[in-house]
Amino acid sequence: MIKKYVFGNPIETGATVQKIPESLSKISVMQMEKTEDKVVLFYNMEKEDIVYGLGEQVRGINKRGFSYISYATDDPIHTEGKHSLYGIHNFLIVSGKWTFGIFIDDPGKVIFDVGETSMETLKITAGKDCVIYTIEAESLKGIVKQFRQLVGRSYIPPKWAFGYQQSRWGYENQKDIKDVISGYKDHKIPLEAVYLDIDYMEHYKDFTVDKEKFSDFPKFVNELKEQNIHLVPIIDAGVKIEEGYSVYEEGVENNYFCKEEDGKDFTAAVWPGKVHFPDMLNTKAREWFGGKYELLTKQGIDGFWNDMNEPAIFYSEENLKKVLEEIIAMKDENLDIHSFFHLKDLVGSLSNSSIDYAAFYHNMDGLKICHKDVHNLYGFYMTKAAAEAFEKIEPKKRILLFSRSSYIGMHRYGGIWTGDNHAWWQQLLLSIQQMPSLNMCGILYTGSDIGGFGGDTTKDLLLRWLEFGIFTPLMRNHSAAGTRKQEVYQFGDTKDFRNIIRIRYALIPYLYSEFMKAALEDEMYFRPLAFDYPEDTSAKRVEDQLMVGESIMIAPVYIQNAYGRYIYLPEEMLMVRMKSPEEKQFEVWEKGDHYIEIALNEVVFFIKKNHMLPLAILDDMVNTTADLDESRYEWIGFAEERAEYTLYRDDGISKTYTPQKDWKSYVFSEEDFADKYQILG
Amino acid sequence: MIKKYVFGNPIETGATVQKIPESLSKISVMQMEKTEDKVVLFYNMEKEDIVYGLGEQVRGINKRGFSYISYATDDPIHTEGKHSLYGIHNFLIVSGKWTFGIFIDDPGKVIFDVGETSMETLKITAGKDCVIYTIEAESLKGIVKQFRQLVGRSYIPPKWAFGYQQSRWGYENQKDIKDVISGYKDHKIPLEAVYLDIDYMEHYKDFTVDKEKFSDFPKFVNELKEQNIHLVPIIDAGVKIEEGYSVYEEGVENNYFCKEEDGKDFTAAVWPGKVHFPDMLNTKAREWFGGKYELLTKQGIDGFWNDMNEPAIFYSEENLKKVLEEIIAMKDENLDIHSFFHLKDLVGSLSNSSIDYAAFYHNMDGLKICHKDVHNLYGFYMTKAAAEAFEKIEPKKRILLFSRSSYIGMHRYGGIWTGDNHAWWQQLLLSIQQMPSLNMCGILYTGSDIGGFGGDTTKDLLLRWLEFGIFTPLMRNHSAAGTRKQEVYQFGDTKDFRNIIRIRYALIPYLYSEFMKAALEDEMYFRPLAFDYPEDTSAKRVEDQLMVGESIMIAPVYIQNAYGRYIYLPEEMLMVRMKSPEEKQFEVWEKGDHYIEIALNEVVFFIKKNHMLPLAILDDMVNTTADLDESRYEWIGFAEERAEYTLYRDDGISKTYTPQKDWKSYVFSEEDFADKYQILG
Repeated sequence: MIKKYVFGNPIETGATVQKIPESLSKISVMQMEKTEDKVVLFYNMEKEDIVYGLGEQVRGINKRGFSYISYATDDPIHTEGKHSLYGIHNFLIVSGKWTFGIFIDDPGKVIFDVGETSMETLKITAGKDCVIYTIEAESLKGIVKQFRQLVGRSYIPPKWAFGYQQSRWGYENQKDIKDVISGYKDHKIPLEAVYLDIDYMEHYKDFTVDKEKFSDFPKFVNELKEQNIHLVPIIDAGVKIEEGYSVYEEGVENNYFCKEEDGKDFTAAVWPGKVHFPDMLNTKAREWFGGKYELLTKQGIDGFWNDMNEPAIFYSEENLKKVLEEIIAMKDENLDIHSFFHLKDLVGSLSNSSIDYAAFYHNMDGLKICHKDVHNLYGFYMTKAAAEAFEKIEPKKRILLFSRSSYIGMHRYGGIWTGDNHAWWQQLLLSIQQMPSLNMCGILYTGSDIGGFGGDTTKDLLLRWLEFGIFTPLMRNHSAAGTRKQEVYQFGDTKDFRNIIRIRYALIPYLYSEFMKAALEDEMYFRPLAFDYPEDTSAKRVEDQLMVGESIMIAPVYIQNAYGRYIYLPEEMLMVRMKSPEEKQFEVWEKGDHYIEIALNEVVFFIKKNHMLPLAILDDMVNTTADLDESRYEWIGFAEERAEYTLYRDDGISKTYTPQKDWKSYVFSEEDFADKYQILG
Repeated sequence: MIKKYVFGNPIETGATVQKIPESLSKISVMQMEKTEDKVVLFYNMEKEDIVYGLGEQVRGINKRGFSYISYATDDPIHTEGKHSLYGIHNFLIVSGKWTFGIFIDDPGKVIFDVGETSMETLKITAGKDCVIYTIEAESLKGIVKQFRQLVGRSYIPPKWAFGYQQSRWGYENQKDIKDVISGYKDHKIPLEAVYLDIDYMEHYKDFTVDKEKFSDFPKFVNELKEQNIHLVPIIDAGVKIEEGYSVYEEGVENNYFCKEEDGKDFTAAVWPGKVHFPDMLNTKAREWFGGKYELLTKQGIDGFWNDMNEPAIFYSEENLKKVLEEIIAMKDENLDIHSFFHLKDLVGSLSNSSIDYAAFYHNMDGLKICHKDVHNLYGFYMTKAAAEAFEKIEPKKRILLFSRSSYIGMHRYGGIWTGDNHAWWQQLLLSIQQMPSLNMCGILYTGSDIGGFGGDTTKDLLLRWLEFGIFTPLMRNHSAAGTRKQEVYQFGDTKDFRNIIRIRYALIPYLYSEFMKAALEDEMYFRPLAFDYPEDTSAKRVEDQLMVGESIMIAPVYIQNAYGRYIYLPEEMLMVRMKSPEEKQFEVWEKGDHYIEIALNEVVFFIKKNHMLPLAILDDMVNTTADLDESRYEWIGFAEERAEYTLYRDDGISKTYTPQKDWKSYVFSEEDFADKYQILG
């Protein structure tokens, strides 16, 4: 049961797709206070209540005990003290004595104090103009399903996007890309895509390709495509200011850029130096910017990642000038400790400054609106720009698309990655915990930078991260310039890496099928245990295990030097321990708590009772998803009586999803398996 | 068996006290390569080897999988990617097929690559002038004991330093201190000491007290002392440059400050603005600086914390001037992205710059030595300055003294706190993991800033941190200016806080006795489980439980919203669950892995079989250690046959430790306890 409450004069954010009549009664699930410029909601939490949600945020699956600030922020240091990351997802569920969901549709700053100030008080502070939806249902899954129906079907990528992908900020040119591909080929490790970070462009100009680095780009793209390897270029939000650069000139001419109050195009600086920001909230500008992706699709590109679209601002001209003037004025003063701190503060305040976000405006199809009030929509609308263009460019074909910044609603147009994390074990845990929160909010195609983006990774961290990453729809190894090289062949013996990535490929029939079911049925691919075992109080406390699809549970190791880990089994399950697709061991473990040893080169997961899953039978030479033989499977299952599995399949590329045709049910009884948990060839 | 190897012409660091003859053979435990400017050691680790040690560092008890850089650094962001913290402790133990300890006595930069570059390779890179000690013994405890005999007996604080202490950067004046004391008194919560951070001084001048903030300081100090509350002022390393300030003038006149190459006093800027650094490595300067502590002891002060002694440098005059000139030169250039990054780098490079550390010199009793080569000794020698002065000022009385920076050897003169941490759960875990590593290196009087120094704490974090902090010898709640107020009475109902702090007081007879035994017998107060259960392979993997003294094991909860935690019991143990000193529950748990629920207001610990411990019987009005009635105890124990405990007691303040007189053995048999794990009144 969804109720919709409207306060003030909110703009249409595009978050929702379902028409819900406005409720004229008071909000029933929380208390409300309305001031001149705020809507504030309160809820008195019981001690045992759990708060789920908020999508891409720091801390655990249970969000209690911290204040989260919804304001899209380019901040690569994701410690537990940070209040904002790149994506904004104002949906949460309070689960306890009373259970309900709440979605705050407000693209400006919203603060969720989930028991930080007072342990028992949930306090949500939104702007005066907002739409609030409350959802009540009989179960957590039911609330999520209703919410997802409200906000629309999740983006579906091409099937190849489930392959293993390699990225690095620092692949400069054709040779670098070729070296990476050879590195994988030489070690017979599957590789599906290589990413182009900012260096491929001509002076970081969107939609250009540097001709010195790529002498014949379309030829190169298509050569790789013949090997079923995709090149995925980055697109940044800011358009470089440069005479003669057509995107810039068209934008200026047609007033497609965000403007200062007086109508001048707003100038900020990011990677290309000075840029203007396309006014993604303006339909014409969006159509125009989206259309530019064709400059790359027509060269053979079929995947993109949209970056810097919080939008990140390194500095604005205005602001930098002021800061420099202040610094220069210091010169003649006594250079004391105050000058030093002032200098530090001045320089520190240059990036992503609220002054800058308040200094430019959108023309939202006639409505002039200050950026700060719709800040969280920018990444969403940039991605919408691309996706709507793809509908025209390639109406029948799925194009890979994901974004750094996002807002509820963007999940209809693309996925996200979880931004510039670090090569810290703590971040591996964070990425595990973010997955179900993102899924709740509709973001299904997602994953973290495996191995860590910033900082030097270690072999053991990369192995453990991959062992989790093989379950995330987006499985991409990505790292920053200047860090230790992170391709899996950079750490000596590649056997373990090869085996783990091959296990991913063996799992793809299941993972893809489960992803598609979650997308088509508005469900969650990753779920906290409590969603599947709502009556189990022990399941409720589990913060580091996830249900993945209908058949399995995972419990990744995320602690350095660990011999294994503690795992809670909410019911008797079949443990599958894999060293490679070929080396599998099975053990039945009873319900309860166990310490289970998991070596550095092992993948472990658990099959629920009377569930099963198909594994692809891999040829030694499987390089990409195109090489997967899906004419037959190896079934593994745990059939106490009978196990049933409905397999979703399709061509992986077209946009028609026909359940009747694509879905097939497999049923096996205990006797079908040689042993009750044996393999079925 | 200790072997000593000398390379080049090392200076005498004062780390060791035992005379060991120089070994002329090759180092046997590791391979060595000597280059013109480096000594490099290699060891090929087995997969199962564990590396313990390195004192105050990031990451787990097992240090494998990272590179640690020994170079004392004032950095408050203790994420797992940081390579250096404040204290430097170049002692580690490799435990496995072959077990040995190694101590690199080199006060310059030393790098420990513990399997980061290659998982199997331990590589230690020291300077060309160093002394290396290797230690072999039959057990981990044996290695530690030999090492500790080599480096000398650990500092022993007065007994009152085991009381609960409150600190905050931001207590400005007498009124603020009084308010804190009233806050505790009003809620009947024990409080032993209040700290004075930098604000008590007159313009941050060492050994001054601002008369406007404290109208009659000695009177105030002594008023508090009548309540058995101690005031503990901070002393910073840098001496403010100010005409008429006697410490500055004497230092200049007598050449007691560190100098630039040309003989000019080196100027850096820290809290007071421009300062000179006393040349702590010069005997006369050290005697002079140490003597200044008497300016405060004669006003009644009997405890100090030495800060900023890495030494931290916010900037040097020279460096800031250069940076400002570069910035000014930018003005006329095109302000592009490169200028911006350059500006950021310039400002970022100002603090703790290696350029500055290379720009000043010590006069080590005639030997001119560049600071960078002895950098890690500065905090050690500042603390030695104070401790040696105390020997003269108060030869018979213990004075509380601890430091931020340290080096092996400093543990003879004072304790440390673990520096400017953050209000993060991750930092609570880090502080648990640092304790045994610090104890190995001789640092027994230690603890972390409970609740977290930087960032806003939460009630639950503070509770959980206190529940661990009641076991650390230094139990101090400390927080930074600008953060949420962190005294325990700032979070509404104080009952749980009061109970936990009172449990600390009940435990003091045991904790103090165990601390004193560890100090007097060169043992560890906190130990990893593997030190007590070397044959137990499960004990070896435990990274978040500690043995505390001879009788108990602790397993603190360090995860937000946790219902409890997994605990490994290396043998059958008696669990003691306390809500207050009066509310205790006992349960016997068998050897193995368990999930144990631990509520937010509960302290849980485990008594080893045939062990016991005394609890102080608390009056409702116990405010300080002086109020503890130690004429009788409540004994709790787990006597399967008989339990024995040797209690160390003394007057808590004098420096004579007479084991024969102070130590008393208590023996109880199973029948003495009403139930075998009952209480003995």
